[in-house]
Amino acid sequence: MSTPTIPATALQLRSLVKKSGELELSLQNVPVPQPADDEVLVRVEATPINPSDLALLFGLADMSTAKASGTAANPVITAQVPEKMMRGLAGRLDESMPVGNEGAGTVVKAGSSPEAQALVGKTVAILGGAMYGQYRAVKAKQALLLPAGTTAAEGASCFVNPLTSLSMTEVMRREGHKALVHTAAASNLGQMLNRICMKDGIALVNIVRKPEQAEILKKIGAKYIVDSSSPSFMEDLTKALIETGATLCFDAIGGGKLAGQVLTCMEAAANANAKEYSRYGSNVHKQVYIYGGLDRSPTELNRSFGMQWGVGGWLLTPFLQKIGFADAQKLRERVAAELKTTFASHYTREVSLAEALSLEAINAYGKQATGTKYLITPQKGL
Amino acid sequence: MSTPTIPATALQLRSLVKKSGELELSLQNVPVPQPADDEVLVRVEATPINPSDLALLFGLADMSTAKASGTAANPVITAQVPEKMMRGLAGRLDESMPVGNEGAGTVVKAGSSPEAQALVGKTVAILGGAMYGQYRAVKAKQALLLPAGTTAAEGASCFVNPLTSLSMTEVMRREGHKALVHTAAASNLGQMLNRICMKDGIALVNIVRKPEQAEILKKIGAKYIVDSSSPSFMEDLTKALIETGATLCFDAIGGGKLAGQVLTCMEAAANANAKEYSRYGSNVHKQVYIYGGLDRSPTELNRSFGMQWGVGGWLLTPFLQKIGFADAQKLRERVAAELKTTFASHYTREVSLAEALSLEAINAYGKQATGTKYLITPQKGL
Repeated sequence: MSTPTIPATALQLRSLVKKSGELELSLQNVPVPQPADDEVLVRVEATPINPSDLALLFGLADMSTAKASGTAANPVITAQVPEKMMRGLAGRLDESMPVGNEGAGTVVKAGSSPEAQALVGKTVAILGGAMYGQYRAVKAKQALLLPAGTTAAEGASCFVNPLTSLSMTEVMRREGHKALVHTAAASNLGQMLNRICMKDGIALVNIVRKPEQAEILKKIGAKYIVDSSSPSFMEDLTKALIETGATLCFDAIGGGKLAGQVLTCMEAAANANAKEYSRYGSNVHKQVYIYGGLDRSPTELNRSFGMQWGVGGWLLTPFLQKIGFADAQKLRERVAAELKTTFASHYTREVSLAEALSLEAINAYGKQATGTKYLITPQKGL
Repeated sequence: MSTPTIPATALQLRSLVKKSGELELSLQNVPVPQPADDEVLVRVEATPINPSDLALLFGLADMSTAKASGTAANPVITAQVPEKMMRGLAGRLDESMPVGNEGAGTVVKAGSSPEAQALVGKTVAILGGAMYGQYRAVKAKQALLLPAGTTAAEGASCFVNPLTSLSMTEVMRREGHKALVHTAAASNLGQMLNRICMKDGIALVNIVRKPEQAEILKKIGAKYIVDSSSPSFMEDLTKALIETGATLCFDAIGGGKLAGQVLTCMEAAANANAKEYSRYGSNVHKQVYIYGGLDRSPTELNRSFGMQWGVGGWLLTPFLQKIGFADAQKLRERVAAELKTTFASHYTREVSLAEALSLEAINAYGKQATGTKYLITPQKGL
């Protein structure tokens, strides 16, 4: 195998929020790092734009104010951050930040350790931040070796969506629930969750917001689909909850009344067969974990669901830390084994780093619309 | 000891919500029960009106519509239940329900079992429902024998407030928090919690809604008191949270923005010493348990507190079930031992069963105002 030519510097996408309240997105030429003894240098070939990347990328700016400048090869995007959002950004002001949670590529150089050397020439996937760039040095043990015959594009989304959806079923088991509810259910992650649940025999209630999203899920074989835009939403949801016994919901929406409506219907389902009046509601614990924020407005809970309920934030990384390395590794291994089936991701479009910073692209992936998913291919030219 | 005269029938307070949407409160003459072998018959001498009794008593009726009829000895109160509340009451419609969570009195008769016989003539406290009446039969093992020299009035509130406040400190320890926040903190329960925390060396941040409530707590020696009506509330609370490290709040208010504000200030406190920006917020888990509903409006969470948070309902009984009999018994024994000090309750007024059903009394105890607490003495005449 010939040694690939490694440049001295390479492109990296950067997000900067200035004290003035201006967001600036640009490409910087940064030195390509030398791997330490236990590290490998990865030429990043594919890295997805996940909803979870957007907070860091856009820095809470109002992207409807976005303006393009610079050149096609060196685009610069600026946008205004609303005044009230600035307090939450104090920790990153005037600091140019790399972006990108996960990706995949080829190990082009390695440190002296045997673990690092063993990966030279291999295709690996990485969860580590700063992936929107052409090169990334990481510890060898952080790099997940992809099965032979897997391309970087196929392995780019190994972690965020696969581990998140798989962990949802793991939380369900660990916290004693028997079925699941998922919102924004026609998303890439939602479709993946349907494939896991079908394979594992878990009943999954899919909540969507539009009839066309229900269609997407019908086509892939989802059994329980309810549309929150329907006038019979509460009845439909309650019926599905009675049938499935689902008392755990993962919610990607966050804002508005949906989380509370789910709890209300869970309580109605719990009481559907109750024989005795209890002033405190049912004794069935009902839980909603909010893991996304598609609706940034406040969460509104009318508490018409007794006293046995919980709503909380949920994030993948602390969950994996909590269950420990061995159990987390089992989840990772299942993802690697089923990467081309259960955990396959599909992309609407592949873009270069520069193309990712066009107003047209930002307008498309920034919407987080169902079915729109971009893959950055950093080695691609303009 | 002479055998007390036990009547064939005695008074019991009843709450009835009719299908028509009318609440009716009245006194019924009901047969005095014969204790079974393992039961004791208690002549109820003192039973408090706790906030937790009001939901069953008032049946979600709008008490501003209350009307009095009947006679002084046999008062009848009627009020209208708002249409939208009726769905939640389906389980109790047209059923005349006894009320009253806890109370104390003298064992006047006992079944044949040695445990029951041992209690004859003794003063006992009971948590068991249906306490707003003149007699109550319960299992002997449900009756808590009060220390010699304790009156029924002193022992009437042995369970709800003492076990709830003591359990709050127990939840704190079990869930790994180091200090507490409490809202509506000048309440009877709040003052009790202050006495527990002072005795046990637990830092407690008291949130009140009025300067005069802050005064009540200052007088009993509370160290951290913040007033949510003050313009500097958020700053004051954050400062107290930085000093105490409190990451667990028990909230009696429920509705509005307070629960979210507490989480926001906890997050600000967690980040006060953070060195690095994290787009997902701090890694400190912040928890609010809502155990009351002084504000019945929706809980509004703006989620400006990262992803490591939880809000949930909290109830004493499921908590005691969860920790198991032995651990719960330790809490009960501590309450009995410190009934006249840490866990002493104070009452604004003692009323008979008939007096409890006067518009004037309902107007007073129904407000759940700080410092207002009624004790029903069912053996008292008109």
